[in-house]
Amino acid sequence: MSRPISAGTLIAVDWGTTRLRALLLDRDGGLVAEAESADGIGTLSGNHEEALERLVADWPKVPAILAGMIGSRQGWREAPYAECPADAAALAQEAIRFTSGQGRDVTIVPGVMLRDPHRDGDVIRGEETQVVGLIDREPRFRGVAIHPGTHSKWIRIADGAIVGFQTYLSGEMFDLLSRTSFLRHSVAEDGRDLSTVADFALGVQRTVAEGLPFLAAIFSVRARQLLDNVAREDNLAYLSGLVIGGEIAAARAASGLSESASVRIVGSPALARAYARALSIIGYPAKMLDGGEMVRLGLVRLARDIGILAVARS
Amino acid sequence: MSRPISAGTLIAVDWGTTRLRALLLDRDGGLVAEAESADGIGTLSGNHEEALERLVADWPKVPAILAGMIGSRQGWREAPYAECPADAAALAQEAIRFTSGQGRDVTIVPGVMLRDPHRDGDVIRGEETQVVGLIDREPRFRGVAIHPGTHSKWIRIADGAIVGFQTYLSGEMFDLLSRTSFLRHSVAEDGRDLSTVADFALGVQRTVAEGLPFLAAIFSVRARQLLDNVAREDNLAYLSGLVIGGEIAAARAASGLSESASVRIVGSPALARAYARALSIIGYPAKMLDGGEMVRLGLVRLARDIGILAVARS
Repeated sequence: MSRPISAGTLIAVDWGTTRLRALLLDRDGGLVAEAESADGIGTLSGNHEEALERLVADWPKVPAILAGMIGSRQGWREAPYAECPADAAALAQEAIRFTSGQGRDVTIVPGVMLRDPHRDGDVIRGEETQVVGLIDREPRFRGVAIHPGTHSKWIRIADGAIVGFQTYLSGEMFDLLSRTSFLRHSVAEDGRDLSTVADFALGVQRTVAEGLPFLAAIFSVRARQLLDNVAREDNLAYLSGLVIGGEIAAARAASGLSESASVRIVGSPALARAYARALSIIGYPAKMLDGGEMVRLGLVRLARDIGILAVARS
Repeated sequence: MSRPISAGTLIAVDWGTTRLRALLLDRDGGLVAEAESADGIGTLSGNHEEALERLVADWPKVPAILAGMIGSRQGWREAPYAECPADAAALAQEAIRFTSGQGRDVTIVPGVMLRDPHRDGDVIRGEETQVVGLIDREPRFRGVAIHPGTHSKWIRIADGAIVGFQTYLSGEMFDLLSRTSFLRHSVAEDGRDLSTVADFALGVQRTVAEGLPFLAAIFSVRARQLLDNVAREDNLAYLSGLVIGGEIAAARAASGLSESASVRIVGSPALARAYARALSIIGYPAKMLDGGEMVRLGLVRLARDIGILAVARS
């Protein structure tokens, strides 16, 4: 990791709503340096180039490849959605490339949209790059990649391509219910890892194994406190189990998860663990992959396909 | 309606979280006068008696019977929950009666709690009185009474008693999603009755007829705006259809609604109409009953059972 900064030949950027994270990579895609700021596109208003240049001011002026909400209409420049199914080659082809005001070679990876006459459409932006990383690592992977978060994405992968996906508002739902709804009086945080609390498993059990519909389940958070004197701290874990379990049950019903499907969970370690625990309760083995690492692998692969990083020496 | 105030022999009070509504009734339960204020228990802190006396200052000093959140722990005095199953006689028996500081004979109707070893508990408070009104009007009714609202209640009725119920957070969910969540950018109000908009029916169709799980359905509100340019005003009706449809689908799955069940919708006319429309889309006939009228009938019946209103002359 102590390679000289001058060895950097590509800047790989994961730029979402709340965070801006840049990696300086060498010719092999290895990490030379990294930098992060709170300049997510949700807080910036138009000065995207300045925010990036400020963050990487000490690094060599090499090409940059960006993924995430930075390519949305609210971002730096819009990189229109590629159509599903989409593989790495399609994403590389739909990427937009331009020279920035400061003369940097900038590429923005597109999101993916799903249009289906039989159901509502859906979109992803950012997760497609993680999936490219997953496919780069496991070219024969066939199954589902779960990307938990504010808007959780279940992405079906086959033949090296994204073949379908579905978005769940689970992270946002949990925040709304635990912080804004009247259920906030029935829950409390105590800093524990919620998925290790017994009541988390109970919430998953109710929604996934017993099939209690999510909308029918949530009032029980209040009833448990009122009638059974469940501690508010345990009740928060129960609510988390209901939300994650509700998502898993919905995904299973929407046939995003067949009995034999291989499952990868791509995300931050704590959240990935919670999903892995919930899935293990109903007997699904799932492998966890680090989200940041998948972004790096995906951006390197796309940079190679686009021709802004030399093909790896084998 | 122009009977003299002095004819009043009972004050019937519907006292919820946001409103305080009092009716002065004659010996037959007929309306003599009514008054309403914004002194819901959510805004008062301990001065309940004062709020009531202020509202009915011009009326004769007759006994008062109260239903709603006023009997909760946060209310005037706690009227502990009666256990389900509960009929009018059980509610009359569990009602608490006391003489107020100002010397008024006050009775508070209890809520009902459900304890079931095989599922989570549940509670109602206020709706039990509307059900007593319904039973008073239709003694042989057997089926489901839906009480839509912030916390929607589906109450099963048989043999003149409440035999089971389930709470859904639908009203609160709709407010959270349309006003607080990121979906607020995809919807807008234009004052139309939402259930008359074609997209309302589509939302009901998706969740009830097609069986799309609620958690899987809600992101489509965003996708429709982004990919299909659906007007934000139409999208609000669609979201309303998803929430009400999600509730109906959940109730059906939780066996609160069998194919042959008789259905009554008890509530404000606009909300009751929306539920009746949603149910008609999937072929359920439902009769609408005015919520305020059911409270009056229920309080009169309970006042008679308790002996604070003379038995009706027949």
